[in-house]
Amino acid sequence: MIAEILSTGDEVLLGDILDTNSGFLCEQLKEMGIPVRQITAVGDDIPAIGTALGKIGKRADICLVTGGLGPTQDDVTALACARAAGETLVMNPLALESMTLYFQQRGFEITPANEKQAMLPPSAKVLVNAQGTAPGFSMVLDRCTFFFMPGVPLEMKAMFKAEVKPGIEKTFGLDRQLLIERLTIFGLPESRVGFLLQGFETEFPDMRLGFRASFPSIEVKMVWVLDQESSAADQTRMLDAREWVVSRLENKVISLAGLSLEQEVGRLLKQKNQSLAIAESCTGGLISNLVTDVAGSSDYFLFSAITYSNAAKINILQVNPATLEIHGAVHEQTALEMARGARQAGRADWAVSTTGIAGPGGGTEEKPVGLVCIGIVGPGVEQARQFTFNFGVRARNKAMFAATALEMLRRCLVQS
Amino acid sequence: MIAEILSTGDEVLLGDILDTNSGFLCEQLKEMGIPVRQITAVGDDIPAIGTALGKIGKRADICLVTGGLGPTQDDVTALACARAAGETLVMNPLALESMTLYFQQRGFEITPANEKQAMLPPSAKVLVNAQGTAPGFSMVLDRCTFFFMPGVPLEMKAMFKAEVKPGIEKTFGLDRQLLIERLTIFGLPESRVGFLLQGFETEFPDMRLGFRASFPSIEVKMVWVLDQESSAADQTRMLDAREWVVSRLENKVISLAGLSLEQEVGRLLKQKNQSLAIAESCTGGLISNLVTDVAGSSDYFLFSAITYSNAAKINILQVNPATLEIHGAVHEQTALEMARGARQAGRADWAVSTTGIAGPGGGTEEKPVGLVCIGIVGPGVEQARQFTFNFGVRARNKAMFAATALEMLRRCLVQS
Repeated sequence: MIAEILSTGDEVLLGDILDTNSGFLCEQLKEMGIPVRQITAVGDDIPAIGTALGKIGKRADICLVTGGLGPTQDDVTALACARAAGETLVMNPLALESMTLYFQQRGFEITPANEKQAMLPPSAKVLVNAQGTAPGFSMVLDRCTFFFMPGVPLEMKAMFKAEVKPGIEKTFGLDRQLLIERLTIFGLPESRVGFLLQGFETEFPDMRLGFRASFPSIEVKMVWVLDQESSAADQTRMLDAREWVVSRLENKVISLAGLSLEQEVGRLLKQKNQSLAIAESCTGGLISNLVTDVAGSSDYFLFSAITYSNAAKINILQVNPATLEIHGAVHEQTALEMARGARQAGRADWAVSTTGIAGPGGGTEEKPVGLVCIGIVGPGVEQARQFTFNFGVRARNKAMFAATALEMLRRCLVQS
Repeated sequence: MIAEILSTGDEVLLGDILDTNSGFLCEQLKEMGIPVRQITAVGDDIPAIGTALGKIGKRADICLVTGGLGPTQDDVTALACARAAGETLVMNPLALESMTLYFQQRGFEITPANEKQAMLPPSAKVLVNAQGTAPGFSMVLDRCTFFFMPGVPLEMKAMFKAEVKPGIEKTFGLDRQLLIERLTIFGLPESRVGFLLQGFETEFPDMRLGFRASFPSIEVKMVWVLDQESSAADQTRMLDAREWVVSRLENKVISLAGLSLEQEVGRLLKQKNQSLAIAESCTGGLISNLVTDVAGSSDYFLFSAITYSNAAKINILQVNPATLEIHGAVHEQTALEMARGARQAGRADWAVSTTGIAGPGGGTEEKPVGLVCIGIVGPGVEQARQFTFNFGVRARNKAMFAATALEMLRRCLVQS
């Protein structure tokens, strides 16, 4: 089955709004086991919409259309559809009735501009809009069933769930099954991941392999579309595929469930019933922000100190002034003392620390931009290591420093 | 001139990521006075990309293509383009050289997978990628000049600005003059901004008004495309337009230069030669991370304490245990004491604090999810206020809390 999405509206082409509707619909169709072949976005323009409908009608089985059903004159989707079908708009009594009801329930009176929204092609079937005034409709053009929905995301989503999804399932008798496995990788560039996984498609020709870089991590996804309910043998084969992938990724898989580093660290801390404190210098709060983005992080996260100044490192984290004098702020010994201080101040089981140079300024020949020292202190653990990364962009350096620190912590948690 | 955008990649069609690249490019082309006729998104599929290139080549003058230039096997855009042009991929020495340089500067070795990225159609002209490995290229198919850029937003944006935009201007003789003013708004929903600015186009018919929501702030942009060098009178008229806009935005303009809240706060602190400490609870490090994302923030930012636990609030920030017992952690008095403690511990001129409930759990009837108390302490200033926002998403609540705290601090800095 070939599915497409058509988004109409000047706002998207002018760059004023992002087309979040298409993303939502792609996700929904994926869950239903229907791959989307193409997304097209055109303006509020009768010929452009008509041309797009005509072409899609010839090549697709299903098309989800959003936008252009409102009351204003630039809402022309129904008219473009009628013309493409060689029909003339007529007042649809069902659409008018559902709209009148919508207004009555809210104590408003219907306006002539709204009545225009009930003018639909005669062969259209009305789709109820529970969240707004514009009725949707479905209609067949050529080989394709089109579902026309409003552009307001809230209204569109409600209509998709209540009307369109059941309609597609009924019309197309869908019984496909989708098996998906997600792995999170940290510590390999995307090119290396691709190189290491060459040969997957030969080994598992029915499955598809996808990569999504979400700097500095990479998600590897295996997708298998089955024609019927998955059997135990199918599921074993999917796990074989996952095993094949993991074995090639040089011990750089940080989650078999697609969790982020901060989610995985949180999961391990919860499992161990242990707590965390953080001392950040060059990462400036990014590690803490990532850790606390995880819902329920207050179960294990207690305290962070972000110490840019040496005075704060000394006063809050009890870093020895002599350490700063002899080694400077960016040094493994300083990182270690920061982690110790945070652990003690926060009364936590574990602490992680960073001190480094995120740039663009502040680098020297001896301590260049991109240098970072990371400390980990926990039950029976005292570690500090030095790394150099420089991506030329402050925010990217911070992101890489933070992820490296979380990964060092994750390894300590796994081994402890 | 007819312009189109083609986005390639399975991630978009699978609903895994939003196609923000197309939105960015639409906005940029609008600024250049080039309307976009259509956006098309297809998967990592050679026939699908080839068909799209063929059709666009026949009907458009310019097409901006993103995605599919990476090193992995699912990156097939260059190959699809070569086939559409009836060419075979060859190693492009310029592309290889620029990529080798990129790796050398970062101390990595080039892999065979990366070398694949330098395989381009013979008639392609290389576009330099300053931010990553994948070279871009431009190429003419039929009547249309295609510009192929990577899908990673950071790399794509840098390449667009450095290579593609000048290329379009040169090829199509667009050396028009552009006057642009950017304002940053915080504290109004986008619909309200749109409503308040109705009538702009009647008042200033030559100019275009654009909005870009970057939650929770909104950027309002005024663009005026002139056919010749701008005169002093033009510049005065542009300032009149800005004044018109500012006067209608209910005192919610936070920067006349398009700066973010954290950039504006940093600018004010630098101007006053004053320093900042931060105490965060519910924002979990987000304020600190935003503040330290600004290059040069070490000039004014000294110290943050992120105190999730009551123990940390008492030990590090000297919050009175009686305050926590009587009022609880989420209270204006607690926020005030946290700010005082951070200011003292960090030896800073100013301190800002947050304590609240970001959700999804942790709310009660009396103190629901979305409640936040913010404290500001500075020279002659002691303030604490309570707000309630709930966007139903933890990260959004944190973002709104952090922005509200920065805005309260900004107002104090302006008035002090």
